[in-house]
Amino acid sequence: MTKILIVGGVAGGASAAARARRLSEDAEIIMFERGNFVSFANCGLPYHISGDIEERSKLLLQTPESFLARFNVDVRVMSEVVSINRQDKTITVQNQLDGTIYHESYDVLLLSPGAAPIVPPIPGIDNPLTHSLRNIPDMDRIIETIKKNKPKHATVVGGGFIGLEMMEAFHQLGIKTTLIEMANQVMAPVDKEMAGFAHAEIRDKGVELKLGVALEAVEYIPNENINGVPSDEGHLEGQLNLMLNNGDAFTTDILIMAIGVRPETKLAKEAGLQIGELGGIYTNDMMQTSDPNIYAVGDAIEEKDFVTGKQTLVPLAGPANRQGRMAANNMLGRQEAYRGTQGTAICKIFDLAVASTGKNEKQLKLEGIDYEKVYVHTASHASYYPGAEIVSFKMLFNPQNGKILGAQAVGKDGIDKRIDVMAVAQRAGMTVEQLQHLELTYAPPYGSAKDVINQAAFVAHNLLQGDSKAIHFDQIDSINDGQLLLDIRDPEELIETGYIEGAINIPLDQLRLRIKELPRDKEIIIYCQVGLRGHVAYRQLVNQGFKARNLLGGYRTYCFAQL
Amino acid sequence: MTKILIVGGVAGGASAAARARRLSEDAEIIMFERGNFVSFANCGLPYHISGDIEERSKLLLQTPESFLARFNVDVRVMSEVVSINRQDKTITVQNQLDGTIYHESYDVLLLSPGAAPIVPPIPGIDNPLTHSLRNIPDMDRIIETIKKNKPKHATVVGGGFIGLEMMEAFHQLGIKTTLIEMANQVMAPVDKEMAGFAHAEIRDKGVELKLGVALEAVEYIPNENINGVPSDEGHLEGQLNLMLNNGDAFTTDILIMAIGVRPETKLAKEAGLQIGELGGIYTNDMMQTSDPNIYAVGDAIEEKDFVTGKQTLVPLAGPANRQGRMAANNMLGRQEAYRGTQGTAICKIFDLAVASTGKNEKQLKLEGIDYEKVYVHTASHASYYPGAEIVSFKMLFNPQNGKILGAQAVGKDGIDKRIDVMAVAQRAGMTVEQLQHLELTYAPPYGSAKDVINQAAFVAHNLLQGDSKAIHFDQIDSINDGQLLLDIRDPEELIETGYIEGAINIPLDQLRLRIKELPRDKEIIIYCQVGLRGHVAYRQLVNQGFKARNLLGGYRTYCFAQL
Repeated sequence: MTKILIVGGVAGGASAAARARRLSEDAEIIMFERGNFVSFANCGLPYHISGDIEERSKLLLQTPESFLARFNVDVRVMSEVVSINRQDKTITVQNQLDGTIYHESYDVLLLSPGAAPIVPPIPGIDNPLTHSLRNIPDMDRIIETIKKNKPKHATVVGGGFIGLEMMEAFHQLGIKTTLIEMANQVMAPVDKEMAGFAHAEIRDKGVELKLGVALEAVEYIPNENINGVPSDEGHLEGQLNLMLNNGDAFTTDILIMAIGVRPETKLAKEAGLQIGELGGIYTNDMMQTSDPNIYAVGDAIEEKDFVTGKQTLVPLAGPANRQGRMAANNMLGRQEAYRGTQGTAICKIFDLAVASTGKNEKQLKLEGIDYEKVYVHTASHASYYPGAEIVSFKMLFNPQNGKILGAQAVGKDGIDKRIDVMAVAQRAGMTVEQLQHLELTYAPPYGSAKDVINQAAFVAHNLLQGDSKAIHFDQIDSINDGQLLLDIRDPEELIETGYIEGAINIPLDQLRLRIKELPRDKEIIIYCQVGLRGHVAYRQLVNQGFKARNLLGGYRTYCFAQL
Repeated sequence: MTKILIVGGVAGGASAAARARRLSEDAEIIMFERGNFVSFANCGLPYHISGDIEERSKLLLQTPESFLARFNVDVRVMSEVVSINRQDKTITVQNQLDGTIYHESYDVLLLSPGAAPIVPPIPGIDNPLTHSLRNIPDMDRIIETIKKNKPKHATVVGGGFIGLEMMEAFHQLGIKTTLIEMANQVMAPVDKEMAGFAHAEIRDKGVELKLGVALEAVEYIPNENINGVPSDEGHLEGQLNLMLNNGDAFTTDILIMAIGVRPETKLAKEAGLQIGELGGIYTNDMMQTSDPNIYAVGDAIEEKDFVTGKQTLVPLAGPANRQGRMAANNMLGRQEAYRGTQGTAICKIFDLAVASTGKNEKQLKLEGIDYEKVYVHTASHASYYPGAEIVSFKMLFNPQNGKILGAQAVGKDGIDKRIDVMAVAQRAGMTVEQLQHLELTYAPPYGSAKDVINQAAFVAHNLLQGDSKAIHFDQIDSINDGQLLLDIRDPEELIETGYIEGAINIPLDQLRLRIKELPRDKEIIIYCQVGLRGHVAYRQLVNQGFKARNLLGGYRTYCFAQL
């Protein structure tokens, strides 16, 4: 009989407990949870605050009772594991209700403590109107603050998943919202030019977006100080004065700190387990820590990056759940190796979805990995069928062997699908050459005979084959005297959407007739709206002996990169 | 200078023409189209009849003029290629307007004639109220008939893509509709138990669905014969008496014949090109016919099946478009091999999508290919977030090596995505073991931390590992005295949705306490609603020494298989 102790009862811990029981009826399984809730829907918290998920009870997926009845797991909530004694193979547990302490022995131990929101040491940040959002009590406190303080203005610091979701929640509640992000873009998993679509959407919805600035100080003004009379309803009423590092200052009624999370490693550290360079608990492919009797999973650990093979921190629910299941397998004597994390992610930002898998361009640059990239903007399904929306798609690949390095997509329809396709293709080790041949579902309501992915693959393969020569949006502003900028859209399009300064305009369908207007001694930098017609023009010119390049992603990519 | 002639100006032909021009500015390219339209949206025709696509002009993607301006392709509409003289490398063309005949020489010739609707020799079928739907004139005639005859009742024969879409179009126009299908299911690409969901949806919407019967005779009754007076508006008014092979007879106001299509091979046959066993033009991997100077693509050809490697007929737009592009590459001296067709397909049936990729179970049985299968019914995204719908999913795989053979999905949300994921995974040669590790997009509005595909992979891998023993819906009715049927759902579920005759009921969460009620000398056949709880019960029983099996897909699969 194996005795399994599990620290942390949410995604990874709960998955491990259930799987362990399915594998062994006689294992003794005890799961410890510091808080009052196990297996709750942490990804759903912002959506209950917004009112999208009406019933709070929907977030509580399991209870200690249901776990016991179904899986015969002894779930101990309000029980903090305060130390691990690796020599005795015991842990020390503190009951959070009465403070009592006891020991529990283990054969194998699983750590699934998660990650905690980072709250930087900003003066004044510790006040009743400032919150982070990690768990049910955090959510309850935010809802309580909204109820009592009736905020007219909310501020969210941090443009990651939680920050963006909280921004949307406030907006949906009719609260004027400011989003502050220190970087020059939100949604770090995608590159800046792709985040541009999100920036436009956020501003379109009336949210004030402040990029490239940081919160420097907070001043809490309780209501009695505002009105001169003490408040009846206690400490939740009041305002905050926020000071930013660019000198801006403004007043807000509620502040959410969502700049990121940090692995909870205190327990592991104190037990002498190896901590990785990135600050997460070190694990090997079997989800074992440096102590083979102790496993760890989820947001607290460092795992292997799928592309680089290096250690990485990816605090996402999907990997946590699968790691939990896998750790249970291995704790009970099986041998299952983790295959690395791509970091596939998606976020709803109002009507947009923004998603990515694999490495982005920023990361590839940092890692010094050689890459090429393409952009495609095309309809989510047959454009003649109602409801089609533009999918803006970026694909990164190895310029030598064509292997997929990463992909990003933004749009109102079919974004999850395209990134899922890319996540599978990348994991399978496919090349852009192979992507051309993908046979995806097509009927007018769902796709196109040549899907976004096929089209991106054509563009990429054309580059690799030498059938196309690219120029990218960030090279346009530095074109030189030896180059000529040629806009091949129809004149109405230039009037409607603007054009790049200095371009001459010959519509594609007139190009053959007017080709003499182009100089043969210059490189023609062709662009159209999205890059597709540009390629037709490029082929025409090159086949007639011109030197040329085509702006991949066209004017659309160029424009949104500025936002 | 290469001279390329293309016969047929829609999907494959038009793709080839455009690609050929991009590769070569000086090739001479002439495209012949028997009808008046090139590059029209043939997949959109039913949706213009229904009114979903309001403007007819949206279906006309290109014109001869636009093709000329953009691609310098000489498009000749109303020009039927009536013969190929392979020795001279010429074709004979008949102008459909004036009947004149001329010859045109080629270096390479591409055949993209498509496939024609099969109209069986049913007595009386040739009448003004009976239509097929292949092209713009067909569509116009159907719309004209609807306008003039103002049908109160429509009949569609054939439950494939066009038949189902026309059924929906009539329903949407407020016309009472009957759908007749000779097989015992609609949507042949999926297996019958999956088609059951479509049958339920079709009947729910008020369409009369007649399965397993065929149309035997048609009697046309013009209006003068109904009213005793001749009609002013000409021959379009009247009714049809339909006689079925089961003795049923009824009256209808318009009849659509959509039982399938047959490759257009007359031209190829008469030119002595090889025709395959299935009746399509034979092509090799380079899209060449038996004459290396003649290529063929699209609905008219036989291509290689991705799973079996045998010749197959797959009249779908995706392959046609990609084959056209590829044929152009090869005609202009490149070497690109076609990688086989999976037959990935999807159809909208009212609120449902029904989709598949690879081989279905019927085909695997016919081919004598060994397979195992799993069913999963799970939410399209986090079930606590609004709008989640059940994805009903079937996966077929090789029981030895776990390789994917095919997949099918039905539901109201996220169906295209799941089949796209499977299409990529299958094409990449992935196994169900590898599918477990897929890292797909997850946020509550889009997916689940363990997606449908991960879950199906877990179920399949459990089977392969011996962690689960399956029983399938079609084996339930033949269980024997050595077996005991155990329903582990809650009693309310049995009352609400019914149960299988002869089952005893012990809810899962009481199973440990009541395990003594189960006989140890019988095999326990466990079922729940979808198979998930059944697996938990299965593991519990087997780990306690019982013999057991779990009904994959649960009661839900069992029920819909009857529909």
